[in-house]
Amino acid sequence: MKKSVYLESTPLNDALNLWLERLRCAGLSKPLPPERITVVDSLGRVSAEAVSAKISSPFYHSAAMDGYAVRFAETFGASETRPLKLIIGEQAVYVDTGDPMPEGFNAVVMIEDVNMVGGQRNVKDTCNSPSDDLLDAPKCIEILEPATPWQHVRTIGEDIVATELIIPENHKIRPMDIGALLAGGHTEILVRRKPKVSILPTGDEIVEPGTRLEVGSIIEYNSRVLGGLVCEWGGEPVRSGIVPDDKEKLKEAIEKACGASDMVVVNAGSSAGSEDFTSEVIREIGEVILHGVGIKPGKPVILGMVKGKPVLGIPGYPVSAFITFTLFAGPLIHKWQGMEMKQQDKISATLSRQVASSLGQEEFVRVKVGSVGEKTIATPMSRGAGVIMSLVRADGIVRIPALSEGLGVGAEVEVELLRSRYEIMNTIVCIGSHDNALDILASVLKKRDPRFSLSSAHVGSMGGLIAIKKGEAHVAGTHLLDEETGVYNIPAIRRLLPERKIVLINLVYRQQGFVVNKGNPKGIRGFEDIRREDVVFINRQVGSGTRLLTDMHLKKAGIAPSEVKGYEREEYTHMGVASGVLTGLADAGLAILAAANALGLDFVPVARERYDLAIPREFLGSEMLRTLLQIIREDKEFRNAVTALGGYDASDMGEIMYES
Amino acid sequence: MKKSVYLESTPLNDALNLWLERLRCAGLSKPLPPERITVVDSLGRVSAEAVSAKISSPFYHSAAMDGYAVRFAETFGASETRPLKLIIGEQAVYVDTGDPMPEGFNAVVMIEDVNMVGGQRNVKDTCNSPSDDLLDAPKCIEILEPATPWQHVRTIGEDIVATELIIPENHKIRPMDIGALLAGGHTEILVRRKPKVSILPTGDEIVEPGTRLEVGSIIEYNSRVLGGLVCEWGGEPVRSGIVPDDKEKLKEAIEKACGASDMVVVNAGSSAGSEDFTSEVIREIGEVILHGVGIKPGKPVILGMVKGKPVLGIPGYPVSAFITFTLFAGPLIHKWQGMEMKQQDKISATLSRQVASSLGQEEFVRVKVGSVGEKTIATPMSRGAGVIMSLVRADGIVRIPALSEGLGVGAEVEVELLRSRYEIMNTIVCIGSHDNALDILASVLKKRDPRFSLSSAHVGSMGGLIAIKKGEAHVAGTHLLDEETGVYNIPAIRRLLPERKIVLINLVYRQQGFVVNKGNPKGIRGFEDIRREDVVFINRQVGSGTRLLTDMHLKKAGIAPSEVKGYEREEYTHMGVASGVLTGLADAGLAILAAANALGLDFVPVARERYDLAIPREFLGSEMLRTLLQIIREDKEFRNAVTALGGYDASDMGEIMYES
Repeated sequence: MKKSVYLESTPLNDALNLWLERLRCAGLSKPLPPERITVVDSLGRVSAEAVSAKISSPFYHSAAMDGYAVRFAETFGASETRPLKLIIGEQAVYVDTGDPMPEGFNAVVMIEDVNMVGGQRNVKDTCNSPSDDLLDAPKCIEILEPATPWQHVRTIGEDIVATELIIPENHKIRPMDIGALLAGGHTEILVRRKPKVSILPTGDEIVEPGTRLEVGSIIEYNSRVLGGLVCEWGGEPVRSGIVPDDKEKLKEAIEKACGASDMVVVNAGSSAGSEDFTSEVIREIGEVILHGVGIKPGKPVILGMVKGKPVLGIPGYPVSAFITFTLFAGPLIHKWQGMEMKQQDKISATLSRQVASSLGQEEFVRVKVGSVGEKTIATPMSRGAGVIMSLVRADGIVRIPALSEGLGVGAEVEVELLRSRYEIMNTIVCIGSHDNALDILASVLKKRDPRFSLSSAHVGSMGGLIAIKKGEAHVAGTHLLDEETGVYNIPAIRRLLPERKIVLINLVYRQQGFVVNKGNPKGIRGFEDIRREDVVFINRQVGSGTRLLTDMHLKKAGIAPSEVKGYEREEYTHMGVASGVLTGLADAGLAILAAANALGLDFVPVARERYDLAIPREFLGSEMLRTLLQIIREDKEFRNAVTALGGYDASDMGEIMYES
Repeated sequence: MKKSVYLESTPLNDALNLWLERLRCAGLSKPLPPERITVVDSLGRVSAEAVSAKISSPFYHSAAMDGYAVRFAETFGASETRPLKLIIGEQAVYVDTGDPMPEGFNAVVMIEDVNMVGGQRNVKDTCNSPSDDLLDAPKCIEILEPATPWQHVRTIGEDIVATELIIPENHKIRPMDIGALLAGGHTEILVRRKPKVSILPTGDEIVEPGTRLEVGSIIEYNSRVLGGLVCEWGGEPVRSGIVPDDKEKLKEAIEKACGASDMVVVNAGSSAGSEDFTSEVIREIGEVILHGVGIKPGKPVILGMVKGKPVLGIPGYPVSAFITFTLFAGPLIHKWQGMEMKQQDKISATLSRQVASSLGQEEFVRVKVGSVGEKTIATPMSRGAGVIMSLVRADGIVRIPALSEGLGVGAEVEVELLRSRYEIMNTIVCIGSHDNALDILASVLKKRDPRFSLSSAHVGSMGGLIAIKKGEAHVAGTHLLDEETGVYNIPAIRRLLPERKIVLINLVYRQQGFVVNKGNPKGIRGFEDIRREDVVFINRQVGSGTRLLTDMHLKKAGIAPSEVKGYEREEYTHMGVASGVLTGLADAGLAILAAANALGLDFVPVARERYDLAIPREFLGSEMLRTLLQIIREDKEFRNAVTALGGYDASDMGEIMYES
């Protein structure tokens, strides 16, 4: 019989407190022993001692200007009417900026304020340059006002006084700190050792990237994501080879890793499934402090200790792994370096869609953040724990507390940013219908001007225009056919956005049609075929232009939705539809030719349609939108890449189709 | 005769535009050629291509739950009243989360929703575990509701659809990007080559750190600061040995460096002094585009080109070097990687002191930034270009435009931050009298809780209380003796802060006295001695408690300030006074014993005084101030370190002396 592991659901804060408290008691949350390294190699390291200057800087009085060193007491009484002569070599000595002051001299008269008796101003180098008119060398300088004590002299310790504190303990060393440490006479410094984190990828099904893939294999990449986080936090990841699903081998691997590092991370096997024996193994060779935290994603985390080292069992889904590792390993890796974990920069935003959440679990929702006009908008993204692209595309994370059942549209939320404020302010928010050309546009924009990004959310044509109405988007991609007039987009804009000044710009004309498997095995020719018993359809979401096109054609053909198998399965993008056909979820779906081409599928044309971008006039003056429009209108690389996708007509690309 | 180099004063923006435009024309501002590296080593690098997925992830349908794979069509009609049986092996196949779906199966029923006919729930492993009661293995599962198509199945492409864009060109690679790239079938990626920047330290007077120092030598550290910046910007610094002041050798070094790197930086010799021939050399082997920019510090910068490579002449003063290198090398090193230079985070603040500035020069003023209550305060710091500690201690930089003559108290300024907002919000702002114990307090605080910092500005006791009054400080260090009553601090607080609730906490009692050279060669015994002809005094600034003490004693002794030589030279700290004595600026000055001890000087006691911290009650509840007070009251390491300085009595340390 299989073991049955009881998974707890400890609230996050309790779990964190328990974890850190247990480690504290075991002496495992204090900084690691220091190591001595050279100052010039210390960038980014953390000081393990307060460092005071050994010597002053400068450590001798030196000239702060080019000119003559004098004794200020000998300059008393000089004036415009009674110039004072000082004998060169005895009472005045030429100095360049930085030269040490000659013994007993205590002021510098700038070269500009000196008259040379004899005409030559600078005589310092006469000995070295005999070719200069040596005979004319003046014997005196003449000054017109007295020098004040120590004028134009950099006195000892002007920058750093010996014994002065340069940097405190627990300070992350920056370029200027290196300068000050060297200036203060240090060549070595005691810094925190870099925490070593062993990462053990486990599982019979996982394979190294680059391995020939077979059905059932999973490319191992979590260890590289976690290792990257360790590097960013100042630690040193040590990745083991893949450990098979074998209790003894896992035991051995954990014990070995405990001997060689400060923390061990096992990924995955932390859940309660039949092959998840990480907790069992940790319990046998050490202790499980806690198994299961009330967070989503990331619930099945294991906090344990083996041979006096913290051992973390991290769930296998990439988003769960990222979040739990950040929560439970991040603070430790920082504490071991004498640092606090850097707080994510936060921004307040308004939620553009509602998010439901289950009671009792603190949920980490990935969001896109857009800054449109005065508004900052957060739009929730895919919530699947298995979707690493949701982390790649996310601008930030919103936490929904365990005691909340969710948040409504318009709720004010705090977003922990994954990208910088600056990047978010320089992002064009494009909401609406999906088209593959938008991906190319995003890529070309970033290439032409790395400051700017294009972020697109696919909510359908109608959703795009509504986002414009609500001030939540700069640009809406739309292809809404008015059934009565046969005109694209303009009637919908007139109806939905009567109060806004909109400029409608054509991006492309494109082919919509049925995406079918290679060779069209089901012989799909038109809408009549998709009500056949042996045909499964895959649909687009309500509000998308393609859904409207589908419904219009079904109505025309007199087919009821209930007659179409798969009508209720909705995808959000053309690629989603094509992927569904490719992978056998369905036999046919309506999408653009580019999507069929991308996945090597066949295509049965249904309609040619116009795909435009609707942009409020107020945004057109901004540099980022001007750059975008310039690419749409003039950029050959963009135009070529789009037409190469297939099914696109770019003849009106960038033309204004309508202005309100 | 010496050359006379004419230094321009081109406005910063014109200089930057000219520089970038000239480099653009020479083809030097576009991204460097890419290089192919492995994805697992690409953290922090910048993509040189848009990367699309080669394969979908997952690339086969897999179970999203532990349970039984079924064909949804075979589950129609199941209900609580009419349970449906499915034959194991034919109609239902056990799957663990992540297992591929068996061919032809298209839904998963969770193990929790299945009744085993026979009683055993999980039979997958029966073959492998013959010890389990094999004979009882059930033949069927029973379900109580129909499965929907593809329920609990991770379908192909759920995370990434083949051909989908993973990251655009010019994207800085983060840990999650590495995961998505590997998941999308990539093991290598084209990234921008790291720009190589040659840094040539020049000068006969500069020596490597660690060299035995002689008067006249300067420790070379600018190259390490600039190299650190290059690393932070993603480039690779290549530092040459020190190049002597020899035109031919400099020429040779520049030419060699041009062949081996993307940019050459010469430091220093960029000015117009007699030994500054960098511009001459660049002109001889290449071209000087510009010499002299209207900024302060940093005017004598040289922008040049040699053998098709940009060559920068950077001034020698550390702050000038840091600022000019950031301005003129920073954008290039970023452009070469296809990035824009990251904008410094900015914060709005109120100026706490006025700053005068000369017309025609854009000035970069280092400031301390403090967040006190609702206010954010920027306090200008030392403006010397030679003071690297001003960069170490600064929280940010305020730019004063070339056309401004300065800014007044209370001006709203924008600060480019050198530390994070978070650090600034967690900094205790201590303004007032200087005491060496504050340095120790700052160090111990950072050690006990790395989140918190103590920032002290030394403006004297009076200045500290005024800062409290204006809401610009959390804590004021004060030792103001009321001449009439002989009471410390309380009368001054009553007079200056009648409207605030202040808690006055003792830090130490300390010895004030004359700091004199070892052996007291001038035989200073009291104030009568400092009016002697052969004695030079060094003073403290107006408003400091020590200055008041000085003036009180002079008055008592009937000595006029004009009788005291050096009375007008003001230092801002005890260490400044001690350093002045040590280095021969003066024979005596009034300071605390700790300062004399620190520099190994002798000391003639004058008074024992009480040094307190005045803290508005409203701040005492905050965690950072509670942590500070706990250290003052209970921390043995702090107490011992303070008493070890000498001259301190810690018997009332942490005691409340007064509350209003």
